[in-house]
Amino acid sequence: MPVIKLKDISTKAPKEFNKEETKQKFAGMLEEFSELQNLLFASSTYSLLVVFQGMDASGKDGAIKNVFSSVNPQGVTVVSFKVPTEEELAHDFLWRVHEHSPAKGMIQVFNRSHYEDILVTRVHGWCNDETARKRMKAINDFEELLTEHGNTHIVKFYLHVSAEEQRQRLEERMQDPAKMWKYNEKDFIEAARYSEYHKVYEDCFEHCDKIPWTIVPSDQNWYKEYIMLKTILDVLKKLNMKYPGLKKT
Amino acid sequence: MPVIKLKDISTKAPKEFNKEETKQKFAGMLEEFSELQNLLFASSTYSLLVVFQGMDASGKDGAIKNVFSSVNPQGVTVVSFKVPTEEELAHDFLWRVHEHSPAKGMIQVFNRSHYEDILVTRVHGWCNDETARKRMKAINDFEELLTEHGNTHIVKFYLHVSAEEQRQRLEERMQDPAKMWKYNEKDFIEAARYSEYHKVYEDCFEHCDKIPWTIVPSDQNWYKEYIMLKTILDVLKKLNMKYPGLKKT
Repeated sequence: MPVIKLKDISTKAPKEFNKEETKQKFAGMLEEFSELQNLLFASSTYSLLVVFQGMDASGKDGAIKNVFSSVNPQGVTVVSFKVPTEEELAHDFLWRVHEHSPAKGMIQVFNRSHYEDILVTRVHGWCNDETARKRMKAINDFEELLTEHGNTHIVKFYLHVSAEEQRQRLEERMQDPAKMWKYNEKDFIEAARYSEYHKVYEDCFEHCDKIPWTIVPSDQNWYKEYIMLKTILDVLKKLNMKYPGLKKT
Repeated sequence: MPVIKLKDISTKAPKEFNKEETKQKFAGMLEEFSELQNLLFASSTYSLLVVFQGMDASGKDGAIKNVFSSVNPQGVTVVSFKVPTEEELAHDFLWRVHEHSPAKGMIQVFNRSHYEDILVTRVHGWCNDETARKRMKAINDFEELLTEHGNTHIVKFYLHVSAEEQRQRLEERMQDPAKMWKYNEKDFIEAARYSEYHKVYEDCFEHCDKIPWTIVPSDQNWYKEYIMLKTILDVLKKLNMKYPGLKKT
């Protein structure tokens, strides 16, 4: 990926996109996704790993809910990577992640991921530049392992929200009783570091680009979810999967 | 590791080694090992991974029993890698291995390992040269991950037995009631491929040499176990571990 500046990339849907039309299209795409996921499961040849990265309140949880709403839960698992446990810290940083890589036929969603080890950690100074470079190499090697040896297709999303939209959403969490459970006062402290986060994300896009990133304008949920689903469908369609015949015994 | 020919390497103890003296030395080294393992566990900074590779009847089980006889079982775990399960085959070949990488403070013993995926599989033609090369790269990357990011020290042993000694030991399994549980008629078929195994091992030593291999002359158990323990102690002593002080709260 060429060097990119996040502040030059719009967080909003392009003018030509109409909300109602896009939502209608999205509904049809969900049906297609359901069929493709069934085929992925039945043929059990490939697996799909979908990585969700983005700042607090960029809409990861909502997107996971809506984009995967049509697929058989038996074929999809979601794991959220939180602050590492003591047992996890006693291993290399990819240990806890590898455990959750998808088996053939499965879709695995990572809500945050191994990328946190070169993002939040860098912003807080827990990971210096030298360590970050080494981790980036390890991440690239790891993704190559999954791709080359695990038949895994990896899709990486960065949910791109504006600072204004983010602040507004965080405030909603204080006011909307349905969203209060998500409120964490520390999120405001993190949000104040908006441009520092941009910096480490940009560095990550540049050095961990063997599997391409999709930067998703995320201020409007309808557009964000449409782009994500479209990206996933494009990957699945290219696999030209077929239903397997009768098993020989 | 420079290109090596296993048939040029002796499977026996050098002349100058006396069996009784070496056994006495070994007993003292076991005490040292016990202390060093306690220090490794208490300081919880490093971990040790010991890989045992070798043909059938090269003496892996016996060596594991004797070399680790003095250490606290709480600080050591042994995993034997058998024919992969369906769940394991549905992932990349390092998935099942990574799960068992040692946590800081621990010693992990691999009785056979990820190397089987470029050894037995090649002899049987289930893995062609191109796949083997790719797997070797993945193995090197993986070992770098454990070393660089997991504070793991890796020791790799190849138990080198002569074809005569191997055949004799396999025959004992048919005759000795205490060893019959190990008997498997397929072992004789594998043993007939002795030089084919040498060939794939030699290729493995050449291409997976970033972490050095120790080729252990293994016709005599007393010498084999002495060399292994000596190699492990050398690694542990170099770590200059100290007992940690009082934890600040």
